[in-house]
Amino acid sequence: MSTPPRSSNWGRWGADDERGAANLLTPDVVLEALRRPKSGRVYELGLELKPDAPVGGDRIAPLHFMTHDGGDFAALNRTDWGTADDYIVLATQGTSHLDGLGHMWSGGKLYNDFPFTEVRSSGAQRLGIEKLGGLVASVHFLDFTHLCDTDDLDITSELVDDVFAARGVTPQPGDAMLFRTGWMDDALQGATDERKYPVVAESMGPWFAAQDISIIGADNIAVEATGRRGVLPPLHKVLVRDLGVTLLEMLDLRLPGEDGVTEGLLVVAPLKISRGVGSPANPLLIV
Amino acid sequence: MSTPPRSSNWGRWGADDERGAANLLTPDVVLEALRRPKSGRVYELGLELKPDAPVGGDRIAPLHFMTHDGGDFAALNRTDWGTADDYIVLATQGTSHLDGLGHMWSGGKLYNDFPFTEVRSSGAQRLGIEKLGGLVASVHFLDFTHLCDTDDLDITSELVDDVFAARGVTPQPGDAMLFRTGWMDDALQGATDERKYPVVAESMGPWFAAQDISIIGADNIAVEATGRRGVLPPLHKVLVRDLGVTLLEMLDLRLPGEDGVTEGLLVVAPLKISRGVGSPANPLLIV
Amino acid sequence: MSTPPRSSNWGRWGADDERGAANLLTPDVVLEALRRPKSGRVYELGLELKPDAPVGGDRIAPLHFMTHDGGDFAALNRTDWGTADDYIVLATQGTSHLDGLGHMWSGGKLYNDFPFTEVRSSGAQRLGIEKLGGLVASVHFLDFTHLCDTDDLDITSELVDDVFAARGVTPQPGDAMLFRTGWMDDALQGATDERKYPVVAESMGPWFAAQDISIIGADNIAVEATGRRGVLPPLHKVLVRDLGVTLLEMLDLRLPGEDGVTEGLLVVAPLKISRGVGSPANPLLIV
Amino acid sequence: MSTPPRSSNWGRWGADDERGAANLLTPDVVLEALRRPKSGRVYELGLELKPDAPVGGDRIAPLHFMTHDGGDFAALNRTDWGTADDYIVLATQGTSHLDGLGHMWSGGKLYNDFPFTEVRSSGAQRLGIEKLGGLVASVHFLDFTHLCDTDDLDITSELVDDVFAARGVTPQPGDAMLFRTGWMDDALQGATDERKYPVVAESMGPWFAAQDISIIGADNIAVEATGRRGVLPPLHKVLVRDLGVTLLEMLDLRLPGEDGVTEGLLVVAPLKISRGVGSPANPLLIV
Repeated sequence: MSTPPRSSNWGRWGADDERGAANLLTPDVVLEALRRPKSGRVYELGLELKPDAPVGGDRIAPLHFMTHDGGDFAALNRTDWGTADDYIVLATQGTSHLDGLGHMWSGGKLYNDFPFTEVRSSGAQRLGIEKLGGLVASVHFLDFTHLCDTDDLDITSELVDDVFAARGVTPQPGDAMLFRTGWMDDALQGATDERKYPVVAESMGPWFAAQDISIIGADNIAVEATGRRGVLPPLHKVLVRDLGVTLLEMLDLRLPGEDGVTEGLLVVAPLKISRGVGSPANPLLIV
Repeated sequence: MSTPPRSSNWGRWGADDERGAANLLTPDVVLEALRRPKSGRVYELGLELKPDAPVGGDRIAPLHFMTHDGGDFAALNRTDWGTADDYIVLATQGTSHLDGLGHMWSGGKLYNDFPFTEVRSSGAQRLGIEKLGGLVASVHFLDFTHLCDTDDLDITSELVDDVFAARGVTPQPGDAMLFRTGWMDDALQGATDERKYPVVAESMGPWFAAQDISIIGADNIAVEATGRRGVLPPLHKVLVRDLGVTLLEMLDLRLPGEDGVTEGLLVVAPLKISRGVGSPANPLLIV
Repeated sequence: MSTPPRSSNWGRWGADDERGAANLLTPDVVLEALRRPKSGRVYELGLELKPDAPVGGDRIAPLHFMTHDGGDFAALNRTDWGTADDYIVLATQGTSHLDGLGHMWSGGKLYNDFPFTEVRSSGAQRLGIEKLGGLVASVHFLDFTHLCDTDDLDITSELVDDVFAARGVTPQPGDAMLFRTGWMDDALQGATDERKYPVVAESMGPWFAAQDISIIGADNIAVEATGRRGVLPPLHKVLVRDLGVTLLEMLDLRLPGEDGVTEGLLVVAPLKISRGVGSPANPLLIV
Repeated sequence: MSTPPRSSNWGRWGADDERGAANLLTPDVVLEALRRPKSGRVYELGLELKPDAPVGGDRIAPLHFMTHDGGDFAALNRTDWGTADDYIVLATQGTSHLDGLGHMWSGGKLYNDFPFTEVRSSGAQRLGIEKLGGLVASVHFLDFTHLCDTDDLDITSELVDDVFAARGVTPQPGDAMLFRTGWMDDALQGATDERKYPVVAESMGPWFAAQDISIIGADNIAVEATGRRGVLPPLHKVLVRDLGVTLLEMLDLRLPGEDGVTEGLLVVAPLKISRGVGSPANPLLIV
C-alpha cells in the first residue's frame, strides 16, 4: 500500500460512533460472508458454563440455580406435568466472551475519544455492549498449536503472512480472525501455566490495522499475553482503544482446529447488557 | 399429504436424542438458509437487558454489577489507563430467551421419553441447553399486529395458510417461524395487560408438526396465551415435549415488523449453560 | 449542660478510628446494658427476607436459591436421608439493615476525615462494616405512630424530651434509640406513600450529639425523610458523617410497639462483609 | 439421673414446633444468660466475608458488588457529597453460619416428624430459619486445640466431663457450647487438611441430649468430622434431626481461645431468610 497503515479508527464513523470496527460489517460484507460456508457444518465456539469451567483472572465460574424443577414435583407427588426454570450469576468476561469497547482505556480515553470516566458503577454510558450489534463476518482460522513449547511463542505478522500466502488468500476489510494457540486444550484439563503457548504478538497491531480486521478471537485469556499487574496489555490498547476491534476470548477452538478449518462464516450475538463492558457469547463458526 | 401429520418426534433421532427439532437443521438446510438474505441487513431480536426490561412471570429483571470501572481509577487519580469488568445475575427465561427442552414435561415425561425427574436442583441431566447446539435456519416472519384489540385473537392455521398463500411460499422442513403480536411494543412502554394481543392458537400444534417447523418465536411471554396457574400451556406440551421444538420468547420484533420483513436467515446461539433449562439470547434475523 | 453540644466525633477516638460512635459501647456500658432486661423476652427487629419484602429505593428484594433440597432426593427415590443448602442475593441496605460508616460523605469527607475516594468498586477501604464490631447497648424505644396523618410529622427534640420527662428517664452516653413511625406497618401491607408518617426531624441532630447516642433505628427507609434526588439527607450528614452513629433502617417495630416497650437491651451483629458499606441485620431487642 | 437421657425432642414442644431446642431459651434462661458476663468484652465469632474466606464444601466465597461508590462521584467531579451501596451473593452455609433445622433429614423425616419433601426449590415450607428466632444463651467455651496432631482426635464425653469437673461447673438446660479445634486457625492461613484436628465425637450425642444443650458451635466445617460422600454425618442426625439443636459452624474462635475464655453470653441473630435452611451469622460472645 502506498498510504501508511491506519493506526486509529477514531472519528472514522463519526464522533458519536460507539461500534468501532463492527462498522466494517456492512450489508455487502455480510452478504459476502454468508457465501463462505460450503459444507453447512456449525461449530459452537463457546465453552460449557459450569463450575469447573476455565475462567480468566480472578473471576468466578458461572453459578447456576434452579428456581423450580422436577424434584419439586416429585416431592409433591405431582407426576403429571410441570415446568422448570433457572438463574445464572456470571462474570461477563469469565468464560467465552466478547470484550466490549468500554472494557479498557489508555491516555484517559476510551475508543473514539470518549473519556474513561464514562464507565462507572452504573456501567458504560458510552460504548456499552448493547450498542455493538450482531456480528456477521467472514473469518480466517489460524492454528498455531505447533508452536507450543517452542522457543519462540510470538505469533508475528511474518508467520501470519506465511499462512495466507500458503493458502493463496488475502484478508479483506471487515474480516474476522481466529487464533488457536492450544492453551484452552490444556486449560480444560486443568492446566494453568500460560507460558508454554503461543500468543499474538504486539507487533501484529499495525498488521491488523492495515487489513481492517473487525474481530479477533483466540482460545486463551487475552489473545495476547495476559498482562502483568500494573502494565497495560499493549495489543489491547491498539485493538480495543485505537481501532475499536471486538476481541473474542476464552474460545473453544479444538474441533475446528482438529478438522483443519481454514475459513468460514462467523456469527456472534452479544447479549444486549445495558451499559455492559463485556458479554458471554457462544460464537458460531459455520463452514 | 396422504400420511397423517406427525404428532411426536420421540425416537425420530434415536432414543438418546437431546436436541429435538434442532436435528432438522442439517448441513443442507443450513446452506439453504444462508442463501435467504438478499440485503445483508442484520436485526437483533434480543431485548436490552436493563432494570426496567419487560420480564415474564415473577422473574426479576437482570442485575448488572461493575467490579471495577473508570470511577475507581478517577478516585485514585490514575488517569492514564485502566480496565473495567462486570457481572450479571439473570433469570434465563426472564427477557429474550430460548426455552430449553428440559423446561417442561407432561405425563411425567420430558421430550423423547426422558423422565421429568432428570431435572433437579443440579439442573437438567437430560436435555440440558448446552446440548442444543447453534441454530441456523430459514425463517418466516408473520406480523399479526392488525389483530390487536379485535374480537378474535387466535392466530390459527387458516390465518397462517392465508399468509403463505398470499406470499406464494410453502414452508420447508426445518424452517423457523417468528410471530409478531404487538404485545412487546406495548410492554416496552409499561403495559401489562396481555388480553388484547393475538396469540398462537392451540390448534396450530398439528400444523407445526406437519410442516416440521424447528423453531418458533414470538414477541410475547409464551408464544401461546400464558398459562393460568394450575393449567398446562397446551401448545408448549405439543411443541416442546412432543416435537422438541425450540421456542423463542420475549423477542423484540418491532423493527423487522415495521420494515415489512417476510423471510430471512435466523441464527440463535444459546449460552452453553451446563444442564440449563433456558438461555438468554439475542437471536439475529438477517434479511 | 454548660459546654456546647459536641457537633462532631472526628478525632475523638484517634485519627485512625473506623468505628465511630460504636466506641461509646465500652465494657462498662455493655455490662450496664445487659442489666436492662427484666422479662427475658427477645424481639427480632429484622424483616422476613422474601420476594415481597419492603425494600428501600430501587434495590431488589432478596433472591433465595436452593442448591439441593428434598425434591432432588424424592426425584431419585432416595427417601432415607439427605441435606439441603441455599444461596442468597441481597441488597445490603434493601431490607432491615445497618448503614455502615462508608455509606455516605459530605464535603468530600467520610466520617473521621477520610476522603470519599476510599470507597470504590472494591468497597470501602476505610470504614468498612467489617470493622464496626458487635453492638450491645441500652436502648430507648419511642413510639410516635400517633402522629400519623397529622399536620405536623416532625419528631422534634421537644417531643422526645417530653417522652423522657414523662418516663422520668435521662438518656446516657452510648444509649441507642429506636423510633416507631408506623411506616413499616403499612409498607408490609403494600402501602408506599411515605408522606403521612412521622420522621425524625433534622433538628434532632444536635440533640443526638449532646446525648452521645450511639445507634439510631427506625421502622422506615431513612430514619429521617428519604432524600429527594440531588439533595443530601441532612440528618444522615450529621449522624453518619459527623458523629459516626450507626443507623438501623427498615426495622420491624410492630410487636414491641404494640407491647408498649419503652426500654431494653439492643444487640446488633453486622455480617462482617469485607469493605462493605452496609449489612443486613436482624437486631434483637431484649426486654 | 434416674431416667434415661432423652434421645429425641420430637413432640416435646408440640406437633407444630419448628424451633427445636431453641425453645429451651425461655425468658428465665435468657435473663440468667444475661448475667454471665463479668467484663463486658464482646467477641465477634463471624469470619470476615471476603473472596479468600474459608468456605465449607464446594460452596463459593461471598461475592460483593458496589452499585455506586465514591469512584463514580470522582469520575463526575462531584466532590461534595454522595452515597454508596452494595450487594452480596452468599452461600448461607459457606462461611460462619447457623444450620437451620431444614438442613438435613434421616429416615425420610426432618426434625419433629416433618417429611423431607417439605424442603423444595421454594425453600423449607417447614422449619425455615425465619422461624428460629433470636438466640440468647449461656455458653461454655471449650478449647481442645491441644489435641491437634495427636493420635486420638475424638472429643469425647469423658474429655468434656473432665473440663467441667475441673471448672467446677455443671451445664444447665438450654446452655450453648462452643468447641475450638484449631482447624480454623490454619484454614485462615490456607491449610485444608482436616485430618489433624480434633472433632466432636459421635458418642457425644447422648451427652448433649442428656444436658439439654440448645446450641453447639465449632471453628470447623461440621462440628463433627465432615461426611464422606454418601454417608450421613451421624452427629448431625442426632443433633439437628432428633434434638432440633442449632449448629454454628465455621466460627472464628481464635481470640476467646487465646484469652482463655471459659464461659459467657452467646447472642445469635439469624437473618430471617424466608424458608431458608441456613443463615450467615456473626455470633457474639460476651464475657
